[in-house]
Amino acid sequence: MAKHKQQKYPDMNQEMTVFILLNVDGRYEQRIFDKLVALDEVREVHSVHGSIDIIVKVTLVRDLLSSDAELLSQFILATIRKWTGVISTQTLIPGISKIKTKENRLS
Amino acid sequence: MAKHKQQKYPDMNQEMTVFILLNVDGRYEQRIFDKLVALDEVREVHSVHGSIDIIVKVTLVRDLLSSDAELLSQFILATIRKWTGVISTQTLIPGISKIKTKENRLS
Amino acid sequence: MAKHKQQKYPDMNQEMTVFILLNVDGRYEQRIFDKLVALDEVREVHSVHGSIDIIVKVTLVRDLLSSDAELLSQFILATIRKWTGVISTQTLIPGISKIKTKENRLS
Amino acid sequence: MAKHKQQKYPDMNQEMTVFILLNVDGRYEQRIFDKLVALDEVREVHSVHGSIDIIVKVTLVRDLLSSDAELLSQFILATIRKWTGVISTQTLIPGISKIKTKENRLS
Amino acid sequence: MAKHKQQKYPDMNQEMTVFILLNVDGRYEQRIFDKLVALDEVREVHSVHGSIDIIVKVTLVRDLLSSDAELLSQFILATIRKWTGVISTQTLIPGISKIKTKENRLS
Amino acid sequence: MAKHKQQKYPDMNQEMTVFILLNVDGRYEQRIFDKLVALDEVREVHSVHGSIDIIVKVTLVRDLLSSDAELLSQFILATIRKWTGVISTQTLIPGISKIKTKENRLS
Amino acid sequence: MAKHKQQKYPDMNQEMTVFILLNVDGRYEQRIFDKLVALDEVREVHSVHGSIDIIVKVTLVRDLLSSDAELLSQFILATIRKWTGVISTQTLIPGISKIKTKENRLS
Amino acid sequence: MAKHKQQKYPDMNQEMTVFILLNVDGRYEQRIFDKLVALDEVREVHSVHGSIDIIVKVTLVRDLLSSDAELLSQFILATIRKWTGVISTQTLIPGISKIKTKENRLS
Repeated sequence: MAKHKQQKYPDMNQEMTVFILLNVDGRYEQRIFDKLVALDEVREVHSVHGSIDIIVKVTLVRDLLSSDAELLSQFILATIRKWTGVISTQTLIPGISKIKTKENRLS
Repeated sequence: MAKHKQQKYPDMNQEMTVFILLNVDGRYEQRIFDKLVALDEVREVHSVHGSIDIIVKVTLVRDLLSSDAELLSQFILATIRKWTGVISTQTLIPGISKIKTKENRLS
Repeated sequence: MAKHKQQKYPDMNQEMTVFILLNVDGRYEQRIFDKLVALDEVREVHSVHGSIDIIVKVTLVRDLLSSDAELLSQFILATIRKWTGVISTQTLIPGISKIKTKENRLS
Repeated sequence: MAKHKQQKYPDMNQEMTVFILLNVDGRYEQRIFDKLVALDEVREVHSVHGSIDIIVKVTLVRDLLSSDAELLSQFILATIRKWTGVISTQTLIPGISKIKTKENRLS
Repeated sequence: MAKHKQQKYPDMNQEMTVFILLNVDGRYEQRIFDKLVALDEVREVHSVHGSIDIIVKVTLVRDLLSSDAELLSQFILATIRKWTGVISTQTLIPGISKIKTKENRLS
Repeated sequence: MAKHKQQKYPDMNQEMTVFILLNVDGRYEQRIFDKLVALDEVREVHSVHGSIDIIVKVTLVRDLLSSDAELLSQFILATIRKWTGVISTQTLIPGISKIKTKENRLS
Repeated sequence: MAKHKQQKYPDMNQEMTVFILLNVDGRYEQRIFDKLVALDEVREVHSVHGSIDIIVKVTLVRDLLSSDAELLSQFILATIRKWTGVISTQTLIPGISKIKTKENRLS
Repeated sequence: MAKHKQQKYPDMNQEMTVFILLNVDGRYEQRIFDKLVALDEVREVHSVHGSIDIIVKVTLVRDLLSSDAELLSQFILATIRKWTGVISTQTLIPGISKIKTKENRLS
């Protein structure tokens, strides 16, 4: 993704993936689910039934001069945490990630 | 619901995706991370720093005659929960999921 | 229940039992208790006084082509989580269960 | 205990049902499950995968002169909480219960 | 303990002490504190600043034919849990208690 | 504030009451209970069955020149938190307390 | 800091530092952040994204004749806990603190 | 944001401040406290008595090409989480911070 930029400014814009765990008011759950799906930064939304209600996987483009947490603050405070029915959010920023590609799995 | 499909059984083996949230003893964290990656059913492993330590995304092949929870029990009890250093696990089974493909995002 | 079907499609419609732990606003507790009892799928309702307020035992008929979690989502999102006064719910799906019958106990 | 009183005071020995939520070390989970099933007072044992690991339904015979909580203490402290691998227990004593009988459900 | 009294049944109404841990909306905290103090069954009210906000010590007169938990339900559901600003309550029923009297301490 | 009292120092040693909530390993519960009772500063010990296992009421003599929290640290770190089987402790320091005396209640 | 007073009344007015962990309704988060910064007693405010939303570092001047917890109660109940959007607060009073000065670090 | 600075790279190594909340085994608390103080990256260590035991304030030098979370992982996994007696850690990365300087406060 965005390979050509990398030749000049290698690593300058990297992706950062985070998971957001939400507790929501059940009366707004469907609406919140749909609004999450509609956000460009959101890659996956899962409605679950444990001690939390929704897991969201988000990919943000890292801006090297601001911190990841600043970026995250801007994103979350301007969107999800503003919505009616969102009771609490916890964001988990992976320090180390291992994601298997389909090819990996088959080989 | 969708009875006629049963004659051909095209959907008999569907995938079920679950997320497992782990708290682990830090002295075993690297080893547990590596053992998770080595499991065939595991698709993603993320080391995080919130109230939990590791998020795992697992895909199991649904066996229609046993329940999802039975499958899950067999998988988790026989693997992760047996490992030294695993303090607690919480499994989240998505009831509704929306995953965007790369094509979706670009278009 | 539904014995005759079992001869032809053994296990095709099995029961799935789940426990739902609720935290509720005390002002709506009696009303929520009564609405839970009125649901066909609900077998037991217990008002307790620990870190949760109500335990519910629910039996759903498994639909083999959709996952247990899909079924559960449809049931919970359409009923309990829509009610005023329900603060949070956690659903526990047994993977392995052992229930003693009265006969077992006496013998 | 106190059998003879039952002739004159027919309500003197009532049953009290409680739920015990357990978190256990996964390496001992199967053994703890089996030991729970073997206890006379235990009616149901469910292995689950949420923020807790096992739900137990227990029926104790109420001894009117000691409190329910004393009885419970004697039972739990002498059994479950003594076992290797039991990390934490939470007991929930129902104040109000509604249990549907099979007849209720069919009619 | 107090064996001889049992002959006359003077202990048929014994006291049961419980602790109630409350989380409250801060805007109602003073009002809830005062309403707690005004309840006859309440012996102590402490405003604290940890993961809970108020600890209450309550003494109920045990009614031997109903269970402690029934009594407790009637008391809590009819009073505290009905009040505006009470977010959650957890009741702790002592199974074994040791309370030192002033004389004990001095001697 | 209240400077003149300092000349006479009548309030120099006041009592501070705190509650300590403990989670303990069940195998050590009886021993920990007994050791708590044996501490001079401990006024009440209650074995309970909720999300915590033991409630302790402690009275410390306030030393005006050190902070309450320093005193508490010295007490707790030197005693309870050193004992085998104590898994976690949470201390709650009342900011405002209302304790009814027996006379209050009767009048 | 305030050296000259110490000659006459050594330690009589000491500072007490506490941390307050807040969960807030996201719609009020920015407003609460600003109101916290405006309080004289507040030294640091950090918006975070874990299981809590805001960390506040507060310095209160100890009044030797009232307890730290009384002071804290007066401060928190009169300010933060009264604000719309504050869901829960937990106050942590350090018993032992070690703060490195810039000079310490460089040397 | 701050584009022109990139030419000179004066901000290439910025500080990132995080808070780490620890639960520890009380028998190791003093030793862990001392080891924390000895770490260069640690600025403040506070022993507290709430639902957590120790608050640590850490300053890491941001390495612009790796993410904050990667840095944090390397630091925490290589140090604190490896120590005997550390039961759990939660790291809070501030997205927005406001720290008053001494001058600010006095003026």
